[in-house]
Amino acid sequence: MQIKREELVERTERMREQMNAHGFDALIIYSDEYRSGNGTYFTNYKPINLIEESPQMLCLIGDLPPTLFIGRLNSYAARQTVWIEDVRPIHKLNEFMPEVFASLLGRPARIGLIGDNLLPLSNYRVIQHHLNQADFISCTDLLIQLRQVKSSNEIDLMRKAARIDDEVLAGLLKKIHVGQTETQVAAEAEYIGRKMGADLGSATVVMSGPNTNFPAWRPSERIIEPGDFVLVDFNPAVSNYCNDGGITVLMPGASQEQTDALTFGHQVIKEVIPLIRPHTVASTIYDLMLERLEPAGYADNFVPYAKGQRGVGHGVGLDVVEQPDLTIDSDFDLLPGMTLAIKLDLHGLTGGGFRIECVVCVSETGIDPLNELILAENDTFTILS
Amino acid sequence: MQIKREELVERTERMREQMNAHGFDALIIYSDEYRSGNGTYFTNYKPINLIEESPQMLCLIGDLPPTLFIGRLNSYAARQTVWIEDVRPIHKLNEFMPEVFASLLGRPARIGLIGDNLLPLSNYRVIQHHLNQADFISCTDLLIQLRQVKSSNEIDLMRKAARIDDEVLAGLLKKIHVGQTETQVAAEAEYIGRKMGADLGSATVVMSGPNTNFPAWRPSERIIEPGDFVLVDFNPAVSNYCNDGGITVLMPGASQEQTDALTFGHQVIKEVIPLIRPHTVASTIYDLMLERLEPAGYADNFVPYAKGQRGVGHGVGLDVVEQPDLTIDSDFDLLPGMTLAIKLDLHGLTGGGFRIECVVCVSETGIDPLNELILAENDTFTILS
Repeated sequence: MQIKREELVERTERMREQMNAHGFDALIIYSDEYRSGNGTYFTNYKPINLIEESPQMLCLIGDLPPTLFIGRLNSYAARQTVWIEDVRPIHKLNEFMPEVFASLLGRPARIGLIGDNLLPLSNYRVIQHHLNQADFISCTDLLIQLRQVKSSNEIDLMRKAARIDDEVLAGLLKKIHVGQTETQVAAEAEYIGRKMGADLGSATVVMSGPNTNFPAWRPSERIIEPGDFVLVDFNPAVSNYCNDGGITVLMPGASQEQTDALTFGHQVIKEVIPLIRPHTVASTIYDLMLERLEPAGYADNFVPYAKGQRGVGHGVGLDVVEQPDLTIDSDFDLLPGMTLAIKLDLHGLTGGGFRIECVVCVSETGIDPLNELILAENDTFTILS
Repeated sequence: MQIKREELVERTERMREQMNAHGFDALIIYSDEYRSGNGTYFTNYKPINLIEESPQMLCLIGDLPPTLFIGRLNSYAARQTVWIEDVRPIHKLNEFMPEVFASLLGRPARIGLIGDNLLPLSNYRVIQHHLNQADFISCTDLLIQLRQVKSSNEIDLMRKAARIDDEVLAGLLKKIHVGQTETQVAAEAEYIGRKMGADLGSATVVMSGPNTNFPAWRPSERIIEPGDFVLVDFNPAVSNYCNDGGITVLMPGASQEQTDALTFGHQVIKEVIPLIRPHTVASTIYDLMLERLEPAGYADNFVPYAKGQRGVGHGVGLDVVEQPDLTIDSDFDLLPGMTLAIKLDLHGLTGGGFRIECVVCVSETGIDPLNELILAENDTFTILS
């Protein structure tokens, strides 16, 4: 199952309509192979980083057919697999600019830049040199708007990725044990997912014990001890569409405080998710969590992390972390077709803290959970004895 | 084993000497978490991409202590693990610029940019806005020069990574079989390496059968068939230092042409590597290979790939692929301390082609191989029957 050519062409035409509606003469859409969504959204191709680094730079100029610049070595596979006919190696950007942008040379032009948070200065300088009378205007939001509401094909792929992640996390519960290192836990998770055919949507997070205090952490050689929280965030991708699911495992020997908190965390996630409604303001998700956590005495373990460091979720799709962001300040409306990772982070507990995360799709009437494991299991399923 | 604080401080001071020698008022050194070498070289910290994207932007301004900007969430771990005292979250770059660059505000300044191939336009615009009288000059080469000659500590870490890769590739030979998908082969390689504590230095490459014709390819659901070449390039990292080792496995049922070519390929690699000498011009490596391949009738399987698409190797270190590049045109001298991936690519054979790759260190007197597997095994060890 793959996104079909017709859908890719249609996305490109919708992008072009946005370009025209906002009075741009051209759009330059940039992403690299690590945060590939902006490019992959139109090409269905995700470059690989070996031997070379490879961006995708899609150029829409007036009503001309699109041009794709891509890494030199990736261009061979892209030419055979991508629907766009004009594929050029980006190491010759300087040479190809006059031909590709012929219609805009030597005159004022309004050029929209999508992905200027990724477009490197060195490439921008080449573009600017050739289009030296152009205004370059950041308009990444135009693509964010398109990408944040998913089609049924996109949701199908994300459901497949979610099912894999559910199997990974369920399988991991049988593998994880005191004495393993964080890296070895990552090895087990990745092995299950990769054998099922998943690509790695992001680096795998494994934090244990005191390392759960960090909002971001690369798996280390720290050895898991009795009573540790072990936070695992594994993000498989299927046909470039990602899942962002996570559980926290509590190792045997934990305190009652840890057990109670993690049990309650599962309860809150399972209560809140079914209450989310389309066409309500997104900050509701934070509110629904706080409403439950505060009377139970967990507000201090929640608020500073959800407000300052972590939020309560974000969009997921071609990239593991996409717009929109879910925080106390999210004032946009939840729209049918939005695919969101919903997460509860409690920290500052004895022994650190935990995260529970699953991906849902906002539907016309409520919530369609893509990850099912956490919602189906009992509230103590990650507490090992 | 980790790079020690003293070495990190010394690197920073050597960088500052280069800054002064070239008349820069400041250096801005940029890398992201995917191509982290420029930053990790000074910090020994490698950010992780989950929840947020995280660059490292090191600022050396005159003789002031260094300032590190880093992703908001990664800044918590960085503050506790990095020797640099002034660590700030990069999402507040606009807010912190006036304070950090106070000595250069409102006056002409020469500012060197390292990593302008990675520095995103959006961050550059913030920097330029505050330092609006400054000239920004790309000088990535200054850091490339420092990074390309490794210290003995760096070489020790790279040897550990190479040993892990040797075990991965040897172990993989027992696991790989007809009927597996490319992704499942990647799963097996990563599992062995990750269990040994390795980080993933890059995406794992597995190309099989006709996919070996592509110079870059992401593992797919293609099922391995009898007689396939299966090219595996797995790149573990230990304490952030990478290996880039690769073998090609020939599945049972291959033709004599394939068997002969792969056997000869191993022979050539094993003959050429011991002949490499310090203080000789780097293009020698290409010449030494061609000298052997041409009389055996493989020039057409080598030259177009080594010249146009692949080269015969490259530097390896904190990034899997670093400068310098090894091609027919490499006119620099090989220096003791350079760590190089040497690779032989033969393509356009019946059934596709292959790559054999191992990392060596140039020593004072010759070559110190970091990967040992390929050099120690017989010429047919990857040919399965």
